[in-house]
Amino acid sequence: MQQDASPLESLRREYRPRVPAALTAPVSELGFADTHPAASPADAATVAARFPRTAGRPVATLVRSGAEKPLVPRPVRAGVVLSGGPAPGGHNVIAGLLDALQDIHAHSTLVGFLGGPAGILRGRKIALDERVVAPFRNTGGFDLLGSGRDKIETDEQLKASAATCRELALDAVVVVGGDDSNTNAAVLAEHFLEHDVPTAVVGVPKTIDGDLKNRDIEASFGFDTATKVYAELIGNIGRDAPSSRKYWHFVKLMGRSASHVTLECALATRPNVALIAEEVLASGATLASIVDGIADAVAARAESGRPYGVVLVPEGLIEFVPEIRALIDDLNALLANRAGDPDARALVAEALPASSRAVFERLPEGFRGQLLLDRDAHGNVQVSKIETERLLIDLVAAELGRRRARGTFAGAFHAQHHFLGYEGRCAAPSNFDADYTYALGRLAALLALAGRTGYVATLRGLAGPAESWTAAGVPIASMFHVESRKGRPTPVIRKALVDLHGRPFLEFAANRARWAIEDAYRCPGPIQYFGPPEVADSRTVTLLLERGE
Amino acid sequence: MQQDASPLESLRREYRPRVPAALTAPVSELGFADTHPAASPADAATVAARFPRTAGRPVATLVRSGAEKPLVPRPVRAGVVLSGGPAPGGHNVIAGLLDALQDIHAHSTLVGFLGGPAGILRGRKIALDERVVAPFRNTGGFDLLGSGRDKIETDEQLKASAATCRELALDAVVVVGGDDSNTNAAVLAEHFLEHDVPTAVVGVPKTIDGDLKNRDIEASFGFDTATKVYAELIGNIGRDAPSSRKYWHFVKLMGRSASHVTLECALATRPNVALIAEEVLASGATLASIVDGIADAVAARAESGRPYGVVLVPEGLIEFVPEIRALIDDLNALLANRAGDPDARALVAEALPASSRAVFERLPEGFRGQLLLDRDAHGNVQVSKIETERLLIDLVAAELGRRRARGTFAGAFHAQHHFLGYEGRCAAPSNFDADYTYALGRLAALLALAGRTGYVATLRGLAGPAESWTAAGVPIASMFHVESRKGRPTPVIRKALVDLHGRPFLEFAANRARWAIEDAYRCPGPIQYFGPPEVADSRTVTLLLERGE
Repeated sequence: MQQDASPLESLRREYRPRVPAALTAPVSELGFADTHPAASPADAATVAARFPRTAGRPVATLVRSGAEKPLVPRPVRAGVVLSGGPAPGGHNVIAGLLDALQDIHAHSTLVGFLGGPAGILRGRKIALDERVVAPFRNTGGFDLLGSGRDKIETDEQLKASAATCRELALDAVVVVGGDDSNTNAAVLAEHFLEHDVPTAVVGVPKTIDGDLKNRDIEASFGFDTATKVYAELIGNIGRDAPSSRKYWHFVKLMGRSASHVTLECALATRPNVALIAEEVLASGATLASIVDGIADAVAARAESGRPYGVVLVPEGLIEFVPEIRALIDDLNALLANRAGDPDARALVAEALPASSRAVFERLPEGFRGQLLLDRDAHGNVQVSKIETERLLIDLVAAELGRRRARGTFAGAFHAQHHFLGYEGRCAAPSNFDADYTYALGRLAALLALAGRTGYVATLRGLAGPAESWTAAGVPIASMFHVESRKGRPTPVIRKALVDLHGRPFLEFAANRARWAIEDAYRCPGPIQYFGPPEVADSRTVTLLLERGE
Repeated sequence: MQQDASPLESLRREYRPRVPAALTAPVSELGFADTHPAASPADAATVAARFPRTAGRPVATLVRSGAEKPLVPRPVRAGVVLSGGPAPGGHNVIAGLLDALQDIHAHSTLVGFLGGPAGILRGRKIALDERVVAPFRNTGGFDLLGSGRDKIETDEQLKASAATCRELALDAVVVVGGDDSNTNAAVLAEHFLEHDVPTAVVGVPKTIDGDLKNRDIEASFGFDTATKVYAELIGNIGRDAPSSRKYWHFVKLMGRSASHVTLECALATRPNVALIAEEVLASGATLASIVDGIADAVAARAESGRPYGVVLVPEGLIEFVPEIRALIDDLNALLANRAGDPDARALVAEALPASSRAVFERLPEGFRGQLLLDRDAHGNVQVSKIETERLLIDLVAAELGRRRARGTFAGAFHAQHHFLGYEGRCAAPSNFDADYTYALGRLAALLALAGRTGYVATLRGLAGPAESWTAAGVPIASMFHVESRKGRPTPVIRKALVDLHGRPFLEFAANRARWAIEDAYRCPGPIQYFGPPEVADSRTVTLLLERGE
């Protein structure tokens, strides 16, 4: 469904993404060279056994002239699918893909599968040409095709996908997705090779969560834009705090298990407190110790005449607190297949193990009810629905109440809660994400032409100017490790959690004591598409610390 | 407390606001001419009796040369206070004031009162010079001075204010605030005249709520920026809806009683449903009929394969639904002075009037608890804390459940809730708000020099370029009507609610049926400070419809 363009969108349609010269060079001058070994998966033997045709291959770097196998232009028939949660820049992957396919050969064609991977299974698709794609250039959202979270896993699903690709005579399918979707792309690639389906499967690394990141993938697309939107808002809230001098703002941030979004926003906005779930897990912190830490900050700031503050809370926090994890597991075990059971409370009082019952009883009443009521179709607690930001407010207020009774706290504590997620997932891509995704789309087309199946498109040197990025296909299987899924050891892409020894976390850790006490708030402001490069072409703090000079 | 500037803030410090030439002309070439009668207050006799010295005066238009009384440059000693909720541009009022005072005479001085009107009462202040003000030019927030909601009303408070102004030998105090604060400024002006305090009181119209608007005030400052931030986010959410095809997003918006913010955001983003509280009141709609209307939209969209949507809800809605208003009044009467009473529920079951009890019983359990528990120190229901967006989700889900049982609805309904307010109040001012507030500050300095006490600074022609705006002081008393406050008839500035016969509402009403069914979502994107004027210098839809060509 084409939306009615705003003035900014109309202007942005004309934006020409900047890309490394190699990506727009005549195709016949280009080739992929197997330049160096890919990373070694954590459990190489298991991966090799499961992926005999696609494991163990080297990195394929895009080179100009002198390539072992120069690319030979021919019409390419390609499909593209958007998978999982939307991320800014998805439409530019499609635009880059379309432009490169046309540059490769005027008779190339592109179809878009509708509604995510289910579109492949059911053969639901639309033809993508310039007329269709033009209004979506440099826009946010996945609404050109829609998205979906279906997986292609079972034999039946793999066969249905093969049938669709054969029927459409596709040379390639480009899968735009996160860790699970790219894992799925590798499964599909292996299956197609095994069954002589002549369709290459190429991945493109997407997710605002920032957790699809490794030796070869410097950043997943969308992280830059989404964190800038959240940082804009947190920056504004951080201006409001010392203006109104009245509220502590607890801001929960999307990002699933990983705390990359929270860490990036903390580095960009310098809140008083930012919780990093990976650190909580590593330290074995209890909920009480987390609450104590926040209460300490509230008390210290109250003493210096600052009854206000900003606290960032990652979405995944609650699962990383060991005692809460245990409680959730115990509740799930106890209440499985009893969704909607009105006697859940009595059952919990009777049968919950003593340690978890003690944790449960210390939670505020509203949250006890939420844990019992908000369960999914299988009766499991829906962790993503737990309002951690409100839970923390209640618990901090209770702790400060105890301190007040003891005479150790005399200040005020009023709080506001926020949850930022949907506000940024479909923002129009920043210049960085617009450039990055367009270039990834062009690279995916070249990988498709080269028949490099089971590879993910990667660009390196992202901290520097687009013109100097280097392009390569990296075997997805090289990013695998083995996890237990549905009780079976399964190779999947290793999800990148925040590295507690990495520069972004260390930078945060070195400053947070000062940020807790001072008003060090920083206001990055909204994404700028025009103007001086220091604002229009900025990178995330995370990327600069990890990959900058 | 000076914040650590972000790259954008550093750049914006250098931005030179555009203002009408008259505001930067040599002071000796300028004067105020009493050009035309001010508006007539609704109850002129009461106002005249209460404001014998400041009511009934004409509009004082700023003119170049030929003024009846040309301005005579001299050192001016001025104070400034920020009052009420922060709004983007407050710091630029101060910057404009400072620059104009310096242009009037190099020996002029400016002090800023700290923490709102309480700063005047207690004489808490800081000296404002270029060194102090420079880092705050074109930034959001009120953190340079802080704000506060205290009023200057009692004899004692009026005397304390007079003492502060005498002690500092102030020629003028500039009050930056909303309807209540400007009402207060008029009270102070009248008091000072009555008691020969030689300090002029000049108002500047501020509020993101957009409800300080009348014949002479085209827009309060901050409305432009705040609604653009909210529209950015709603636009992103409106991209997410058809991308994920999964959720109905219910977005509550700040704005106190008036629905201007919601109406502007609706015009800018074209959601499926936008509730306008003033229309609900005028039509006497019940909560059930509102819920029915939303459920109809959900059902119609489900039928056309669109199980998603966007609903905007003004913060003030709940008070405008007659039955809820009655319930709240009954609860307040019943529970006054019983804050925290554990027997509130039993009391309600026994003693709430039957009509209100029926309304109460139909509310979801969580909200019944909220109404009973979240009461202020006087035991009153805290209307602003009622989570209307969640209440509507629960009620719509229940209504759809009934339709499903009857076989008239077969779709899915999953919802997300959002509340946007603090995210935008302290955003850095848009170019429009930066220009507007800087010009208002300069104008306030000229009104101060002219000794025009009890006037509010106004600029007209805001839909056009800044260079062509006209400047005038308008007597605050001309904006009064009489309301009962604390049981006494009291002249106050009439709060502007959404005019159901005005062009913004009519434009919305003419399009909403189409927006309900189609995906007409519009994505305005983030505020741009650079780039082509159609994005960097845009106005609100409301202003263009009300005041445009």
